[in-house]
Amino acid sequence: MISTKMKPLVENNSVIREMFEEGKRLAAIYGSENVYDFSLGNPNVPAPEAVKESILEILEKEESTFVHGYMSNAGYEDVRETIADSLNVRFGTSFGVNNILMTVGAASGLNVILKTILEPEDEVITFAPYFVEYGNYVHNYDGKLVVIPPNTVDFQPNLEELAKKITAKTKAVLINTPNNPTGVVYSGETLKQMAEILRQKEKEFQRDIVLISDEPYRELAYDGVEVPYVTQYYENTVICYSYSKSLSLPGERIGYLVIPDECKDSKEVFTAATIANRVLGSVNAPSLMQRVIKRCIEKGATVNLAAYDRNRNLLYEGLKACGFFCVRPEGAFYLFMKSPIADEKEFCNQAAKHRLLLVSGSSFACPGYVRIAYCVSYEQIERSMTAFQSLAKEYGLMGG
Amino acid sequence: MISTKMKPLVENNSVIREMFEEGKRLAAIYGSENVYDFSLGNPNVPAPEAVKESILEILEKEESTFVHGYMSNAGYEDVRETIADSLNVRFGTSFGVNNILMTVGAASGLNVILKTILEPEDEVITFAPYFVEYGNYVHNYDGKLVVIPPNTVDFQPNLEELAKKITAKTKAVLINTPNNPTGVVYSGETLKQMAEILRQKEKEFQRDIVLISDEPYRELAYDGVEVPYVTQYYENTVICYSYSKSLSLPGERIGYLVIPDECKDSKEVFTAATIANRVLGSVNAPSLMQRVIKRCIEKGATVNLAAYDRNRNLLYEGLKACGFFCVRPEGAFYLFMKSPIADEKEFCNQAAKHRLLLVSGSSFACPGYVRIAYCVSYEQIERSMTAFQSLAKEYGLMGG
Repeated sequence: MISTKMKPLVENNSVIREMFEEGKRLAAIYGSENVYDFSLGNPNVPAPEAVKESILEILEKEESTFVHGYMSNAGYEDVRETIADSLNVRFGTSFGVNNILMTVGAASGLNVILKTILEPEDEVITFAPYFVEYGNYVHNYDGKLVVIPPNTVDFQPNLEELAKKITAKTKAVLINTPNNPTGVVYSGETLKQMAEILRQKEKEFQRDIVLISDEPYRELAYDGVEVPYVTQYYENTVICYSYSKSLSLPGERIGYLVIPDECKDSKEVFTAATIANRVLGSVNAPSLMQRVIKRCIEKGATVNLAAYDRNRNLLYEGLKACGFFCVRPEGAFYLFMKSPIADEKEFCNQAAKHRLLLVSGSSFACPGYVRIAYCVSYEQIERSMTAFQSLAKEYGLMGG
Repeated sequence: MISTKMKPLVENNSVIREMFEEGKRLAAIYGSENVYDFSLGNPNVPAPEAVKESILEILEKEESTFVHGYMSNAGYEDVRETIADSLNVRFGTSFGVNNILMTVGAASGLNVILKTILEPEDEVITFAPYFVEYGNYVHNYDGKLVVIPPNTVDFQPNLEELAKKITAKTKAVLINTPNNPTGVVYSGETLKQMAEILRQKEKEFQRDIVLISDEPYRELAYDGVEVPYVTQYYENTVICYSYSKSLSLPGERIGYLVIPDECKDSKEVFTAATIANRVLGSVNAPSLMQRVIKRCIEKGATVNLAAYDRNRNLLYEGLKACGFFCVRPEGAFYLFMKSPIADEKEFCNQAAKHRLLLVSGSSFACPGYVRIAYCVSYEQIERSMTAFQSLAKEYGLMGG
């Protein structure tokens, strides 16, 4: 019954999601406190109180038919205006209502922009390690995902390889900073160099190349590290944003696209993306949550970043003490750890015996590493440390 | 910049949506009370009080990380169970958790099932007049929409034509009952005959044919008319449901697919559809609204159907008195009226001069008719009557 295109997806159903289900299964057997599930980017830090406050205010003050009704497919204008203003204040941009398109989270935003611009066989370049769904999103529109191998020294994007991989078929470059799974943040200098390469290649191939920046982790950066705003570096940029992490609302599916005026054919792209948002079936981003976002911006709401930061430090120091190796993450809530053996899937299986659920780097096109999502309770990390220690001992990383 | 596939969509941007924008423009000039906007299916009847009550209860009693967090891509299990149980009680079905997949409204549900089953060049048959987006949804997956011409006698589906139009390429038949734009409800006898044709053609072509039933208007039926449950008539049925109309939540994007056990390869189809829901970018249906649906079902919440019924009667009788001709709708909140001139677009333009916003039947592949959405205030219908009378006089339908 199912289509040829869906068959491989059913066969290789998301490893991460399987772990999510496996975690639920183990928790039912051993009790959730005895399962150290580090597999999914499902925030443990609750949404800020402003979300609840906003909902209560909206239900009290705004009309039901307005709050739950249809609006323009691009979203409520006042919401989009508030977002644009907020970005302008923070990043020195000059966006208006017609640069902001509300979407069903960043995953939907990525689908919308890819549907808008991709021809069959068009190439989209991304840097390993990368979020495995990118391949599926690009394939939805018969594009081809071209993967630049990981730079395992510091996990910064390999720009020399980027320059080599761009061809006459390249339609877009897809980046993710702060990065899932490495926690790395791209610097202004990196983005400047990347932009130069893209401009040069646009001239060489006489073709527009869109830089798509997937930014659900923008607000999750530590130690005061700056996360530069990509539209300030390259004209043909489209931003995919989500409130899944910045307001701990991943289940609500609320985010937006930024299509700046500087983007080639900006107005037409915005219109086409609005139509793509509609015909792909979203129609519009969920209405109540759009209204919540407006109030949360006005209230200056943020998640409790300090909680993630504490988790990050506890986990990083703990793993280092075990003898594991990992790059200290600057952003997001993932730690990308080197597997003590080349076959990191085997290492994950071994970890699971200690009820440690980690995701293999192969899921991100980066074998030899594992992803540890630390958007969990501080207590889970504390409790998991003896399990990590036992695991380390099995691999001779610390004295037994 | 935009893809070849998107270009015609940009050029023929939704007429209905344009009218929505036009309505807002006219309202700003003349005042909203002097614009009779009958163009969009945006419910005027507010969501039942149970929606607000449910949200307040959820925010009070359920954990933020649970309410706004990720769940299985198919949706919360307890929500799906409540829906299955409710359907079973009402329609004598025997659905379980694994037959219900929560979606971002019915539009997304349709995209999900079409992505799941369609091969390029596969044909999907539908009956005119039909919702224009069906064509876009089918084209998203490179399928071909085959349209059966309207039966303008009573707007029941033309089953003789259906039998003729099914070929070896037919993968699905897409129906919509209660119908947008006609308000017609398919009877049990109609569905029985349709099922017989499909079974016979499945044998003839040795191929499964899925009957996709798009049912956002299921709960909107008047005069006690029965809306039969399609899975009871044909095995390979998939239901696309939405709460947009039944709970007046169109902006919230909440609905579900039913994939019954009787459907061929049911488990695999369900898994593939769950993956399609994820990779198309929805990831999952909005979480808070899923939880609201559960409580609303438990509370037995419904919209104020009597309000639509009053509108229906006022409008139908009023138009009849003007000398216009239309089939009396049994369901949904649309009235499909015959244009007094063959060129109904010209008639719509003329109507707009009286600030009556109607949608041309050509938008539904049924020229010569116009759609009037009566999900508006009773007062709007009352006030609009003098405009309809003036319009009727212009066409010599009533004495001037």
